[in-house]
Amino acid sequence: MFKAVIDAETLRDSIEAVSSLVDEVKFTISERGLELKAVDPANVAMISLKLDASVFEFFQATPGDIGVDLVRLSDLLSMADRGENVKLELDEEGHKLKMGVGSLSYTLSLIDPSAIRKEPRIPDLDLPAHVTVSGTELRRAVKAAEKVSDHVIMGVSDEGFYMEAKGDIDSFKLKIPSSELLGLKPGDARSLFSLDYLSDMSKSLGKSQEVKLELGLDYPLRIGFKIKEVEINYLLAPRIEQE
Amino acid sequence: MFKAVIDAETLRDSIEAVSSLVDEVKFTISERGLELKAVDPANVAMISLKLDASVFEFFQATPGDIGVDLVRLSDLLSMADRGENVKLELDEEGHKLKMGVGSLSYTLSLIDPSAIRKEPRIPDLDLPAHVTVSGTELRRAVKAAEKVSDHVIMGVSDEGFYMEAKGDIDSFKLKIPSSELLGLKPGDARSLFSLDYLSDMSKSLGKSQEVKLELGLDYPLRIGFKIKEVEINYLLAPRIEQE
Amino acid sequence: MFKAVIDAETLRDSIEAVSSLVDEVKFTISERGLELKAVDPANVAMISLKLDASVFEFFQATPGDIGVDLVRLSDLLSMADRGENVKLELDEEGHKLKMGVGSLSYTLSLIDPSAIRKEPRIPDLDLPAHVTVSGTELRRAVKAAEKVSDHVIMGVSDEGFYMEAKGDIDSFKLKIPSSELLGLKPGDARSLFSLDYLSDMSKSLGKSQEVKLELGLDYPLRIGFKIKEVEINYLLAPRIEQE
Repeated sequence: MFKAVIDAETLRDSIEAVSSLVDEVKFTISERGLELKAVDPANVAMISLKLDASVFEFFQATPGDIGVDLVRLSDLLSMADRGENVKLELDEEGHKLKMGVGSLSYTLSLIDPSAIRKEPRIPDLDLPAHVTVSGTELRRAVKAAEKVSDHVIMGVSDEGFYMEAKGDIDSFKLKIPSSELLGLKPGDARSLFSLDYLSDMSKSLGKSQEVKLELGLDYPLRIGFKIKEVEINYLLAPRIEQE
Repeated sequence: MFKAVIDAETLRDSIEAVSSLVDEVKFTISERGLELKAVDPANVAMISLKLDASVFEFFQATPGDIGVDLVRLSDLLSMADRGENVKLELDEEGHKLKMGVGSLSYTLSLIDPSAIRKEPRIPDLDLPAHVTVSGTELRRAVKAAEKVSDHVIMGVSDEGFYMEAKGDIDSFKLKIPSSELLGLKPGDARSLFSLDYLSDMSKSLGKSQEVKLELGLDYPLRIGFKIKEVEINYLLAPRIEQE
Repeated sequence: MFKAVIDAETLRDSIEAVSSLVDEVKFTISERGLELKAVDPANVAMISLKLDASVFEFFQATPGDIGVDLVRLSDLLSMADRGENVKLELDEEGHKLKMGVGSLSYTLSLIDPSAIRKEPRIPDLDLPAHVTVSGTELRRAVKAAEKVSDHVIMGVSDEGFYMEAKGDIDSFKLKIPSSELLGLKPGDARSLFSLDYLSDMSKSLGKSQEVKLELGLDYPLRIGFKIKEVEINYLLAPRIEQE
């Protein structure tokens, strides 16, 4: 059993954060809310997302799993205006999710959860350097780096946080001194990442005031942030730096 | 003889309502204003439109017909800014329409009215059920239905007005209870319509506060509305419901 | 040596005025500011532009030339938000231009000035008729003329300034009486110009309150205007009128 009411924009923003990596996903429903873990088809990036019961206007559920086509769900959610609520109700027998927005209602066919790629085990890495930056600033830096290259180095030095990208012709650098960071735990950290992934993620990152980056030396990047009260974590594998 | 001045946006919105169905049209000019009747190339939808002389800032005319390429006319009208007037003047000998917007003026070549498809006789149907809804709500419902199917059922029940669309995977429903309708004359009504046509019409419908729908059982749909003071009526043939 | 700080939008608007004609350009740097002269690949239009030292927030330079890829420069400048400054610094040994916007910085590779097409000698024509019009009005007229033809006649008569375009089907006319012109020196002037070029220029022209047009009889058109305090001059060759 699952019945819930949620602000349409909060749900839309949450779905968008996930659909930048995967098209289909298994939601785990419990009394505590909705949760999901997913890995992109190329095994480069993972996401975990928690829609706590408290984020909903109304939430009532018994444990269970549902498989959702995120492309279809986003498309239907696009009908909701800013400030509108979405009613969700699971039709367990019909394997359908009923969605209501104002006087409109949809019936969305669910996917058999066993047909969806298995949830990843998200490694519990202890990354040495932590940096907190504004989401809009991070988004702008990702866009800027894309103008010169496909890859970007992210690192932490004694002076603060930096990003570097070198193209065939031009190069890009971002430096945020420690005094301007929202948070810093210095540590030995410098890794190369694909801008494709960062770019897909950055639309969601740009909606967050504070984004926490956890970094190591040629190690994955963990990105933790909240959109409204929704907790989202990305984990992005490093690329090998070629000189 | 035909000389007139009209608010550019009113003329533009009127032309748009027509050009969703046909590219070329014959306007009938009289002392009372401009009128037209047209049927789309596939004989599925008709439009009748009345630009009453009172809608114009200035209007002087002797009876006559002119054939107009609506695509060209819309394109030229797009030059007018919001709030600007358009001056129209017929050059009968040259078979041209002169249009003036601010210091700009155009000469639009007219089409021989006899080369334009004959005006349809619009059937005088007595449809049993009448429903009045807001244009924006109707537009949103049409958009929503398009997300799941190419066709939509419109009907009237004891409870109010409804729309239903079933796709291969998902389905859509709109229900407006009688208490939320702007007007209702209940009657036996349920028919299937092509969303292509409704979608083309809905841009214009969305500009109207009140849209009157007249429906029957597997019968055409009459849609009556006003944009500013311009009276527009669509008539849309039903499709055969396949179960 | 060249070090400067300038409002990003002023620089962006200046670059845009030039990049409507050429992709690569040689800037001449001196104590007085930046200057350039360029001719388009088809030899139909020339531009000269002066970024006076006073336009900059900070300006320090010794004479020299730099070759710049305007497409790359515009792309990088697009990262700056409205109201932000850009820091520019020449790295003479590396043949690079360093650009800083907020915490972002770019290194733009310069082009060897000798590899860029030679600066044109801009002829010092004494054109008989001068007309001053608003940039937005001129831009609208160019757009309007494009709706009917590829070419437009510009001329000055006893009554004021006019533009005319004749298409295969429709025709366009603009008439601005002398009383509505911002300035007029009457003279014998009527020439035909390519709308392609005028259209490319008109985005920049539309940003200027006052645009001075200097015209003759089948003679080039000189267009002089300022964007903020940047002086820009176009010279456009006439086309031969075919009747």
